[in-house]
Amino acid sequence: MGYPDTFQGFQIEDPKNWTDFKLNELTPKPFGDFDVDIKIQACGVCASDLHTISGGWGEQHFPLCVGHEIVGTAIRVGPKVTLIHVGQRVGVGAQSYSCLDCRQCKNDNETYCRHQLDTYGAKWPDTGIISQGGYSSHVRTHEHWVFPIPDGLPTSKAAPMLCAGLTAYSPLVRNGAGPGKKVGIVGMGGIGHFGLLFAKALGAEAWVISRTHSKEADARKMGADGFLATADRDWNQEHIMTFDLIVCTASSTEGMDLGAYLQLLDVHGRFVSVGLPEGSGQEVKTQDFLSNGCLFGASHLGSRKEVLAMLQLAVEKGVESWVEEIKISTEGLKEALTRVHNNDVKYRFTLTGYEDVFGA
Amino acid sequence: MGYPDTFQGFQIEDPKNWTDFKLNELTPKPFGDFDVDIKIQACGVCASDLHTISGGWGEQHFPLCVGHEIVGTAIRVGPKVTLIHVGQRVGVGAQSYSCLDCRQCKNDNETYCRHQLDTYGAKWPDTGIISQGGYSSHVRTHEHWVFPIPDGLPTSKAAPMLCAGLTAYSPLVRNGAGPGKKVGIVGMGGIGHFGLLFAKALGAEAWVISRTHSKEADARKMGADGFLATADRDWNQEHIMTFDLIVCTASSTEGMDLGAYLQLLDVHGRFVSVGLPEGSGQEVKTQDFLSNGCLFGASHLGSRKEVLAMLQLAVEKGVESWVEEIKISTEGLKEALTRVHNNDVKYRFTLTGYEDVFGA
Repeated sequence: MGYPDTFQGFQIEDPKNWTDFKLNELTPKPFGDFDVDIKIQACGVCASDLHTISGGWGEQHFPLCVGHEIVGTAIRVGPKVTLIHVGQRVGVGAQSYSCLDCRQCKNDNETYCRHQLDTYGAKWPDTGIISQGGYSSHVRTHEHWVFPIPDGLPTSKAAPMLCAGLTAYSPLVRNGAGPGKKVGIVGMGGIGHFGLLFAKALGAEAWVISRTHSKEADARKMGADGFLATADRDWNQEHIMTFDLIVCTASSTEGMDLGAYLQLLDVHGRFVSVGLPEGSGQEVKTQDFLSNGCLFGASHLGSRKEVLAMLQLAVEKGVESWVEEIKISTEGLKEALTRVHNNDVKYRFTLTGYEDVFGA
Repeated sequence: MGYPDTFQGFQIEDPKNWTDFKLNELTPKPFGDFDVDIKIQACGVCASDLHTISGGWGEQHFPLCVGHEIVGTAIRVGPKVTLIHVGQRVGVGAQSYSCLDCRQCKNDNETYCRHQLDTYGAKWPDTGIISQGGYSSHVRTHEHWVFPIPDGLPTSKAAPMLCAGLTAYSPLVRNGAGPGKKVGIVGMGGIGHFGLLFAKALGAEAWVISRTHSKEADARKMGADGFLATADRDWNQEHIMTFDLIVCTASSTEGMDLGAYLQLLDVHGRFVSVGLPEGSGQEVKTQDFLSNGCLFGASHLGSRKEVLAMLQLAVEKGVESWVEEIKISTEGLKEALTRVHNNDVKYRFTLTGYEDVFGA
């Protein structure tokens, strides 16, 4: 067997052994009229991959191949596909299905469709097949979730934009980040560094809020207008009620004094969380919201339209992901995931070298 | 002594005896160039009054005269007053000072000014005098916080609009309540009934969300389009992702499953809390916000412009506060506050009969 009947991919079989990748045959869902088959060339390594394979987000369908920052070449398109053509360089992010028929889908909120399915680990309703991600040879995806990658964006730098980049970009544009606005990015990891880069590309004044000053030099290189370290005494006092928007990308809320962040917001300013920390939540007191009438919320990925606009903005403004490339293999994946677990990455891994494993 | 050197008012001297009102002489702050002296005719009884005098909101400056839903007649205006003239029927709400000079003040967000002072219980910076409220003969207030009451609004019905009404009105208009929008009002007390009345007056579809159906008949009389009782099984299931805005007026969050309310919101819908419950806060999980990208926040009173617009809307749309009048006196106050404590009021008390106590 082989393509197009089966794909190949690196799977985790047991969350207790989440660095033990096995190269297995994968069964894709049947090829549909709107589907695009993509020969994968690169894939970013997202913290979601780690949360999923290590069991941090609860039970999953194992064996599982993760990876949802996929770039490759469209090699086959279904008879009803109009958005993508064979030979095109394309990407796939963290979402691969929604009904496209409900109010949310029709309002460019397909991320919030009640029928949405993830690129990996989701059960396809018709067949019961579990969706498999981009640590693999191919992916088969409905054209709505396949995005042309503009010329001028290197493959390895485009890949992590498809989840991390979009996750930062969508709440920025939906909450008015732009000229004259002061935006805070909490946490400078994969998503956070995109938050900074895109906030600047959108014309906003961008500040990073981190625990220490260890990443300040990098942030300044990326264009940060300011940097706050919460370990500093009275770290928020000079900036109370001056931020229009804070996008929180922190992967842990352990010991986080939410009230101190909320004080930074101007009247009706918003604190939008895009991380999905493991474990329980945070306590909010209405009192913390009263002095400025601020809002706390969350954001999940973004729409197809936003993906396309983000990629275009990246080309126009020369947004450069900070990426470390690593060759896909059992060893390479073990190294990448272990280093993500240890927060030892600046600021994203992109898996490359697919042709060495899966052929040209 | 007497007016204009001293006022008279009913004070609580000890939060342990919060129904034991004493009629005392009050020392007003010195009369300023922008001040208006008001001979009081009526005052609403707000839950804030109870929280304050009973110690539920922490320490206060006793003895204290509360009351911040004041209507009366302007009897003296300072030399620089331009907004109010002698003889005019006017109101004063819960706020009586802000700097009028900061960014917030200049953007009609004077409620969120860092220098804002409450109508009662606040210490005037210059003199150290503690501000005293409307369970009294007179109040002396800067013209910015004195609002002409339009003809056609009865005094006893206008009074409770000045805190409870505004508290509900401001988050409605600031969050787009109007035609085509579905608005939920959580809790049907003093503020909640105004939320319902003003949501309807603004043209929105308005639903009340209450623990039981006990107030449904009243809500329907006030124009509610729907009523949800959280004690009902699966109470939220038919309405998931259909509300644009929820204004929460509940005075307690005990046992409240915030997640179940947030599920009601459409994408990026807002849950705005205007109650200020005693005690600690609620736990929020980012997970609760992800399925719809919703927002949780709070709102505090409203601007002068909003007061004037609210009163005008009330006249134009015939908004009628549901008010029970009670004569001001030591006995009347004891009865009113005790019944507020027991949630035994539909839906607001207005104190009247001021001339019997304080003269015509």
